[in-house]
Formats: sequence, C-alpha cells, structure tokens
Amino acid sequence: MNNGAISISVIKRLPRYYRFLGDLKNAGLTRISSRELSARMGLTASQIRQDLNCFGGFGQQGYGYNIELLQSEIGRILGLDHPKSAILIGVGNLGRAVTMHIHFETKGFRLIGLFDSKESLVGQVIKNLPIRSTSTLDEFCRENLPEVAVLCIPKEAAMQMADQLVRLGIKGFWNFSHYDLSFKYPGVKVENMHFGDSLMTLSYRMHHDE
Amino acid sequence: MNNGAISISVIKRLPRYYRFLGDLKNAGLTRISSRELSARMGLTASQIRQDLNCFGGFGQQGYGYNIELLQSEIGRILGLDHPKSAILIGVGNLGRAVTMHIHFETKGFRLIGLFDSKESLVGQVIKNLPIRSTSTLDEFCRENLPEVAVLCIPKEAAMQMADQLVRLGIKGFWNFSHYDLSFKYPGVKVENMHFGDSLMTLSYRMHHDE
Repeated sequence: MNNGAISISVIKRLPRYYRFLGDLKNAGLTRISSRELSARMGLTASQIRQDLNCFGGFGQQGYGYNIELLQSEIGRILGLDHPKSAILIGVGNLGRAVTMHIHFETKGFRLIGLFDSKESLVGQVIKNLPIRSTSTLDEFCRENLPEVAVLCIPKEAAMQMADQLVRLGIKGFWNFSHYDLSFKYPGVKVENMHFGDSLMTLSYRMHHDE
Repeated sequence: MNNGAISISVIKRLPRYYRFLGDLKNAGLTRISSRELSARMGLTASQIRQDLNCFGGFGQQGYGYNIELLQSEIGRILGLDHPKSAILIGVGNLGRAVTMHIHFETKGFRLIGLFDSKESLVGQVIKNLPIRSTSTLDEFCRENLPEVAVLCIPKEAAMQMADQLVRLGIKGFWNFSHYDLSFKYPGVKVENMHFGDSLMTLSYRMHHDE
C-alpha cells in the first residue's frame, strides 16, 4: 500500500467516507454496497470503488463493504488512532464554538490548552480546560509539547504568532485566520479554513448554472 | 467565454486569487507578473496563466497583469457585483462569530436577518441586526425574499429546517451544520463548511509525508 501516491482529491474525500460510514454504523447497519453508498454520498459507485481501491480495497464482490471494518481502516489511514496534542489560540466566539462543538478526540487530536491574549478571559474554563494567557505559551509548550495549533485569531495576530509557534515545535496548523500560512513554513502542515473563500464560491455557484 | 466549462478546481481557486489580488492592491501595487503571483500564492506560473486563460486571459505578454482590473473581473465572475440577500440561523458562538467577522458585503451577499429559536436571545442586536425568533421566519421570508440561508445550527436542527427554508424560497445554503444538504435538494446550491472533515485532513497530512 503506497499512501504516498494517493491524490489530494481522494484524501479530501476520506473524511466524508469516514463520517458517512459512522452514521451508517450508528444506524445499526453492518454492510453496504458501493451502489448504496454512492446514492447516499452523491458520488458514482465506480468513483467509490476507485477511491477505496487506492487503499487496497476492502469490498468483497457481491457482499459489499463491512462498514465497521472499512470505517476503522479509513480512520487508521487518516491517522485518527495516533492522536496529536493541540492548543487553541484565540478564545473569542469562534474559538469558543470550536472548543465546545468539535470532537477533537474522534478526529485525531487531543485539545490540551486554550490561550488568549485578553487577560479578562484568563482563568475561565471551557470543557474542563482553563483559558491561559498567551504570555505563558512558551512555558506551556516546553512542558507539554503540543504538535498542533488551532488559530482562531485575526490575520495580523496569526502573522505575528506563527513564527513563535513554529519555533516552539508546532508542526501543524488548523488555521481560521484569513492568512495563508502554508507558503511561509514549507515543512509545516496547514489546513486553512477560509470562510470568505467558501462564501465567494457559493456566490459563484448561485450566479452561474453548473 | 464559456463559464460552464470551467472546472470546479479552477472555481475553487478564484476566491484565493481575488483575496491575494486585494492584498496586493491594498499594498499599493498596480501590476504583477504571473511569476511573482505564483511565488506569493504557492502555485506555478503556468498554473496561474492556465487558470486565468479559462476566463479569456487578462495578461499582456511582458507587462503582467493589471491588478485592479484582474481583481474586479474575477469579482464579476464570482458574482460579487450581484449581491444576494442572506439570513443566518443559529446565533450561538459560531453564528455570532460569522455575523461579526465575515464581511458578507464584499463577498457577494447582504446579511439581512438573524434568527434563533432561543427566545432569550431574541431582540439582541449584532452589527445592527436584531435577533428574531425562528417562529417569525415564514413572515420575514415572504416579506424580504432572502435567497440564502447560513446554517449555524446543529445537524438535527438543520435537517428539520431545510425543507421549510427551501419552501420559503431559499436557493443557496452556507452550511456549517454537520449534515450534507446538497443531496436532498438537487436544484439548491450548497457550500458545506465541514470543520471535522478539515481537521481529519490535517490529521492525515501530519500522519503521512506528502
């Protein structure tokens, strides 16, 4: 199995497979055909077979896929069984929503620290995590070695803090600031959540008939 | 110019071009070569020329691109000059963050109404918009004819409200709930913001060397 050869478009679909299969599992199903899965996911059956073949193929001709097995295998490929520790910076409305509603532990991460530069927020507790002052970031990172930073801060703050975080050993960013980090730190992995880009894409799609 | 033939991957890059060109314009620049633009955006120069040629091409050999002209043309293609009115449903932490920090008006939309089912929030004002009760949704939509709904509500609530919203004339969803609306309403445009999928993609990328 050569994961290095998997295209980014297949990788981008894996979380959706994982999510759909989880829903099916929760609904009590144990097997599904590529045809049924395709109908639910809005993909073609051949697309699904092709995607899953990239990872060695889990289906048995005529029997469909074992949902639990397929989901856990996709989870393994996604690295969900090797949780990485994460800190979140910027506990405004967005940071709060992310802390409260995202189940980091089922998505390959452990959220171990919350930070904000606003001293008035320091000491508040969200989901059992106290908000810490960003002035204690160096110390915290040296002691706890987080690998990932979730940036829920404005562009300017992200530009200022990125160097520090990389120096402190951060190897991955989940970036909500409107700033493309990836081009500055070639070795560091970045997932940008660009709300504005998504909104403009919706504008395009409503404006044109595709 | 045949916009119908433009691939989704090119369309997905247009907002980034628009954003980068806006930054360059704000920095006082007037022209840029595809080589310079590629260095800043982390794309190849030939990729950029190819993308922009899809729309008829705006560059002059040897002169580079006129930044303002190119940005406004991309904005036009994105439909930003034809603002669509939008309502936002669910004014929790996420809905609040979206209302306060997203500049709808520069991204092709006008946010005209906020709704929440929690009566205790009704009447609060965010960015000059009062939070209304979802029980007044029908009336509001009949009077104001919004075309887009921003869903900042949990999956179950989104599943429940989607039918009503489509019936009320909503033609586009900016969907933050963990629920893939698109397959249920073929005629309706949906942009899903799946936080969890993005986080799992980061997990994959940190787990593998790509």
